[in-house]
Amino acid sequence: MKPIGARVELIDLPLRDDLRGRTPYGAPQLDVPVRLNTNENPYPPTPALVEDVVREVAAIAGELHRYPDRDAVALREDLAAYLASSTGVSLTSANLWAANGSNEVLQQILQAFGGPGRSALGFEPSYSMHPIIAAGTRTEWAPTPRRADFSLDVERAAEIIAERAPDVVFVTSPNNPTGQSLPIDDLRVLIEASPGMVVVDEAYAEFSSRPSAVVLLEDYPAKLIVSRTMSKAFAFAGGRLGYLAAAPAVVDALQLVRLPYHLSALTQAAARASLRHAAETLGSVARLAAERDRVVDSLAGLGFSVVPSDANFVLFGWFEDARATWRSYLERGVLIRDVGIAGHLRVTVGTPEENDAFLAASKEVGR
Amino acid sequence: MKPIGARVELIDLPLRDDLRGRTPYGAPQLDVPVRLNTNENPYPPTPALVEDVVREVAAIAGELHRYPDRDAVALREDLAAYLASSTGVSLTSANLWAANGSNEVLQQILQAFGGPGRSALGFEPSYSMHPIIAAGTRTEWAPTPRRADFSLDVERAAEIIAERAPDVVFVTSPNNPTGQSLPIDDLRVLIEASPGMVVVDEAYAEFSSRPSAVVLLEDYPAKLIVSRTMSKAFAFAGGRLGYLAAAPAVVDALQLVRLPYHLSALTQAAARASLRHAAETLGSVARLAAERDRVVDSLAGLGFSVVPSDANFVLFGWFEDARATWRSYLERGVLIRDVGIAGHLRVTVGTPEENDAFLAASKEVGR
Repeated sequence: MKPIGARVELIDLPLRDDLRGRTPYGAPQLDVPVRLNTNENPYPPTPALVEDVVREVAAIAGELHRYPDRDAVALREDLAAYLASSTGVSLTSANLWAANGSNEVLQQILQAFGGPGRSALGFEPSYSMHPIIAAGTRTEWAPTPRRADFSLDVERAAEIIAERAPDVVFVTSPNNPTGQSLPIDDLRVLIEASPGMVVVDEAYAEFSSRPSAVVLLEDYPAKLIVSRTMSKAFAFAGGRLGYLAAAPAVVDALQLVRLPYHLSALTQAAARASLRHAAETLGSVARLAAERDRVVDSLAGLGFSVVPSDANFVLFGWFEDARATWRSYLERGVLIRDVGIAGHLRVTVGTPEENDAFLAASKEVGR
Repeated sequence: MKPIGARVELIDLPLRDDLRGRTPYGAPQLDVPVRLNTNENPYPPTPALVEDVVREVAAIAGELHRYPDRDAVALREDLAAYLASSTGVSLTSANLWAANGSNEVLQQILQAFGGPGRSALGFEPSYSMHPIIAAGTRTEWAPTPRRADFSLDVERAAEIIAERAPDVVFVTSPNNPTGQSLPIDDLRVLIEASPGMVVVDEAYAEFSSRPSAVVLLEDYPAKLIVSRTMSKAFAFAGGRLGYLAAAPAVVDALQLVRLPYHLSALTQAAARASLRHAAETLGSVARLAAERDRVVDSLAGLGFSVVPSDANFVLFGWFEDARATWRSYLERGVLIRDVGIAGHLRVTVGTPEENDAFLAASKEVGR
């Protein structure tokens, strides 16, 4: 049976012109033995954490007929406590904001500080959602290239920022999909050069040994926003919790554009349970960092060209036909990511067994 | 201790000009004995439903380190089955789309079909988030007045639509905050007059005895979108689940603007559990409709002017100073809503005990 209305096609609808011909964002969600394509933490929540999530959800489920706390204050307090303890900066709930994944956090930032007639600048290749969210909020996107080795020429970047004067600058550190993070002094140079807001996207910060940009909030409260996620190190991708740290006035600004009650009572409860188990969950970070280094060394040993990484993924090449190589991995039951960088593929660091499977496939696939 | 960056104020930030001076949307979240201000279902989830929600969350909690199904297919199948059974229209998952509350659904609709250079029209007073979401997506808002008694002059409305040619028309049925719904033939007139998309916002449809606009999807697949929510009749406001029914091509269009993985695994699991208990939850709808009629009659008996309603709330007046009257109710432990309509207040239909408390306060507060 055809669905109701199936005779109408996308072309028949009054879709915005700038959306025509586009395809939805998203890596293939395939059911294969080894999934190393979306930078998830490969370690499932511990039984204690699962139990705690279930207990918290049970505690609020009887009140699901009521709207959730619109300001998610308790969750923001917990996020502030976590971020304060991991960065040494004394943050409060007034410094924190949360949404359904860091994508929604970034969308709210561009709704408040970007939008029509404004521009956002990013250093590419980087997180591909930045230009997509810019397009979704009709913010002009100003892509600026990294060096050929994917590192950032900070002096040149500062010059470009000063020249183009974007309203928002995105700095991803560690950078996805290439893997390197920026030292604090480099971030300082970029912020000083920026006339508008600077968003340091720290989705992978827990995997890096460099200090967080959060330490710069005291110096640049009117410019700096540090975004984070619980999807990666926190092993909470299914729970969808992104957050940011900034001056309280920035949080006030985002409350002007957020949809009311955007964070469900379920999300707030489960995220709080997850934060209580931060120590045990983040215990996997050191293991993953060690595995990352093993994967890097092994790939280099096999003759691949490997980009240095302090995240939980590795960009490597060089492939004549990256798409064909991606397919060769998939045929061997290993799902990695074609991020659209010529000659390169990205692999998430998994469990030792998953990494072994990936490395075994790498030997067969060759360069 | 002052939060980090507290020396910076909103005025110091490069906020968009159109946001300056705005205040965040939202009714006061106050802890009072009788809360009748946000049109929630006053009946908490049954123990069986709570148990099922907890069981479903427990079943997925061990996989929270993985991203959720980006397309929420199983949930959309369940929503299609519910809506098909309640409207008699054979919908499939391809006709359904879901997001974190109907606010996000409506935002996605305007991202795809509205936005800069486009306009949306609504018949005011109506759901106040429509113009706010239009502003958030930079869609020009074309407010069009209802009659003095808040009913819609459909012929005149069709003329205005034809004249102004908005890209999107919002029709709220039953209308919030006034309470009346539109017959199918009137909806047909409005859709025929519209050059673009027509969104029939049916957040309160379950409380009305009129047929859903879903029956018109077969006739107007390139124009009609019917939005719904689980926040009201479904008693799932805390779970944040809005959805819509439309032609599959409309769902394709929304997938171009949705943030990937916008719906958490928790939300998908809990909403599915909630849908399984639709029959018992919706059992409260008849009770609430009977209580609504009692509240309407009692208010009229007390000499108030009452707007007819087939939703779970009642708009009533006339008050010289609605704000002062709202405060008088609050002082008596009854929280209702000042929706900004001169001389009027809105009360949600609660449990018989809550309605008694409201009516007792009404006697004291007077007109």
